Amino acid sequence: MNGLLLHETGPRLEKVRQTIIKMQADACIITTPVNHYWLCGFIFDGLLLLYPEGEPLLFVKRPAGIADERVKAIRKPEQIPDLLRQAGLPLPGRLLIEADQLTFSAATRLQAALGMPETGNISGELRKLRAIKSPYELEQIRESARIHAEVYALIPTLYRKGMTDLELQIEIERQMRLHGSAGIFRSFGENMDIFMGSLLAGDNAQTASPFDYALGGAGITPLLPLGANGTQLTPGSTVMVDMAGNYRPWMDDMTRTYAIEYAPADALKAHQVSIDIHEAIIKSFRPGIPCSELYLQAEEIVKENGLTTCFMGTVQQARFIGHGVGLEINEPPVLTPRSKEILEPGMAFALEPKFVLPGIGAAGIENTYIVHEEGLEKVTLFEEALMCL
Amino acid sequence: MNGLLLHETGPRLEKVRQTIIKMQADACIITTPVNHYWLCGFIFDGLLLLYPEGEPLLFVKRPAGIADERVKAIRKPEQIPDLLRQAGLPLPGRLLIEADQLTFSAATRLQAALGMPETGNISGELRKLRAIKSPYELEQIRESARIHAEVYALIPTLYRKGMTDLELQIEIERQMRLHGSAGIFRSFGENMDIFMGSLLAGDNAQTASPFDYALGGAGITPLLPLGANGTQLTPGSTVMVDMAGNYRPWMDDMTRTYAIEYAPADALKAHQVSIDIHEAIIKSFRPGIPCSELYLQAEEIVKENGLTTCFMGTVQQARFIGHGVGLEINEPPVLTPRSKEILEPGMAFALEPKFVLPGIGAAGIENTYIVHEEGLEKVTLFEEALMCL
Repeated sequence: MNGLLLHETGPRLEKVRQTIIKMQADACIITTPVNHYWLCGFIFDGLLLLYPEGEPLLFVKRPAGIADERVKAIRKPEQIPDLLRQAGLPLPGRLLIEADQLTFSAATRLQAALGMPETGNISGELRKLRAIKSPYELEQIRESARIHAEVYALIPTLYRKGMTDLELQIEIERQMRLHGSAGIFRSFGENMDIFMGSLLAGDNAQTASPFDYALGGAGITPLLPLGANGTQLTPGSTVMVDMAGNYRPWMDDMTRTYAIEYAPADALKAHQVSIDIHEAIIKSFRPGIPCSELYLQAEEIVKENGLTTCFMGTVQQARFIGHGVGLEINEPPVLTPRSKEILEPGMAFALEPKFVLPGIGAAGIENTYIVHEEGLEKVTLFEEALMCL
Repeated sequence: MNGLLLHETGPRLEKVRQTIIKMQADACIITTPVNHYWLCGFIFDGLLLLYPEGEPLLFVKRPAGIADERVKAIRKPEQIPDLLRQAGLPLPGRLLIEADQLTFSAATRLQAALGMPETGNISGELRKLRAIKSPYELEQIRESARIHAEVYALIPTLYRKGMTDLELQIEIERQMRLHGSAGIFRSFGENMDIFMGSLLAGDNAQTASPFDYALGGAGITPLLPLGANGTQLTPGSTVMVDMAGNYRPWMDDMTRTYAIEYAPADALKAHQVSIDIHEAIIKSFRPGIPCSELYLQAEEIVKENGLTTCFMGTVQQARFIGHGVGLEINEPPVLTPRSKEILEPGMAFALEPKFVLPGIGAAGIENTYIVHEEGLEKVTLFEEALMCL
């Protein structure tokens, strides 16, 4: 392992050890790729076992040949008790697992393999730990945001008259990949299927979707009812571009809105209210503020402007205006009306107050911010006005 | 619902009802998007409850406004017992769940909400039911394969001298999307992360990956160590293209190999052995054959040709040569040396005997086949020889 990697994974492992102690458990087992990567710097098919003291044990099925002295090759979890005995380590009596991600089958098999320990759920605690980023992680988000802005700067050159939403999205996807996008877009939890992001044109922005994103869209297949659906881009309608910022393992999030040929007054107004919300929140922000206050502050501005019925959708309205970003696109905290989560220094979050105007389309912007003692750092540096294509 | 949809979902629901009876359960609850789609024709955030008799109940959190009289809106699973009481339906005492996909947290919450029924796992049985396709589903696979071939036919026009594997892949991805690819690539189970497919050039084809695909590759990010890694395409090396066939909800699978400028003799030989394996299997195939026989037949041909050490990888060798295809890319059956699964009429599977030649790259082809009483129907109709770019 290189020095930077150890410098990053060492403190992360220590935080997890402290969590095991806090949760009064004997050990935890990590099984998700995202947390394998966070704690080791690489991904494997297998289990990471961590006690409150000492280095983690990596029980690895695949790939063969990882150069790490902590690795023990296994074919199945049933081999673990013998390997622990050989290493002089105890079988945990109370074990934390990633219960929000591990399947019921895998969890019950693991319990049986380890002699039926009592289990607790460490998923939420790991997500809370990951919500506070290191300087290295924050710099990755800044780098991703810089490349994200470079790609969006190409949008006017990608647009051609007569295009559909999907045709424009495909050209953006290509530029994303040429700029280093990983392609795959990591989210947490169920009902979060998505391809490379969301691009919504005209009234498709009103379509309710089963997924837990800010806005919906019909999509092009019943297996993924989300986003662009082949809507023709027509003069006076808007296109909201919310494509992935996955140019680094730690991601940013960014939305910009474009009008085709000209912007209707309603779109300009709603778009300006979105920008006003960003500015009001930046101005009044102090670390330690609960997420709910930001939501309520936004909601107040929306009310004053008479835009309540088109805020965060029409047919279906999302009840959040932002979310943490990182290795997954939906990390804590979430900016909901009742969230008790606190915005702390080291957190990175996306703010996305959006409007959907019947007959026109969506309007508004999304920026990524980093929380500092002194206030918010805007990471998304790019023209915010409604731009015409 | 349209007639076609009812014509398809009706028999599928009936097969699941029979499975509930066979498994001596009172009901089953379906929670995955893929099986919601299979049984209803659309995707929702919620639960489908099916008893051995009667129409399913759809408890839907999102989206609002589904036009289906079987839908009951809910906010959380804890509301279900009351809704069942109102409908005069019993709480199931023995309940089947999709335990291979539902998370431990979601499953235990559901158990608690429903008064702690005894649970069984219906995941495997549903996958077995889905493995036998209807004529409509098989036609979707044929259609997908036709478009898949159209996209591969463009590869010579997409290649430019001096390209990297990734640059070529990005141009193929764009053509896939322009031809209707859904983008997202559905697979079953853990350790199956993938973006739009796999393209392997030169020695990157040797790189072991944590994922359960036929071959590996280093990828471009530690979060997705699979596939293209920026390898320069150089004369005398090969490029194996195994991009997704997701042009319809029911997918096909297809691999073709290209040599840059000229094909080394070793690549031509190994590639021909792959084609020979396809032809031998087509020739001797009869429905009712166990999957293991196909594997052993292929292995024998590989041995005769002295290619054992480079069959299905070098550093890490996959122990399967094919798999069912459908709504997910890895459906049953799997063609392994010890598989007792039987190839039955109505099944569709991909056959992918591949070789990895050090210093050159991967060679071989993958076709999709449909099993009929009379033998195999080749669905992938496209030049099979090693082609030069």
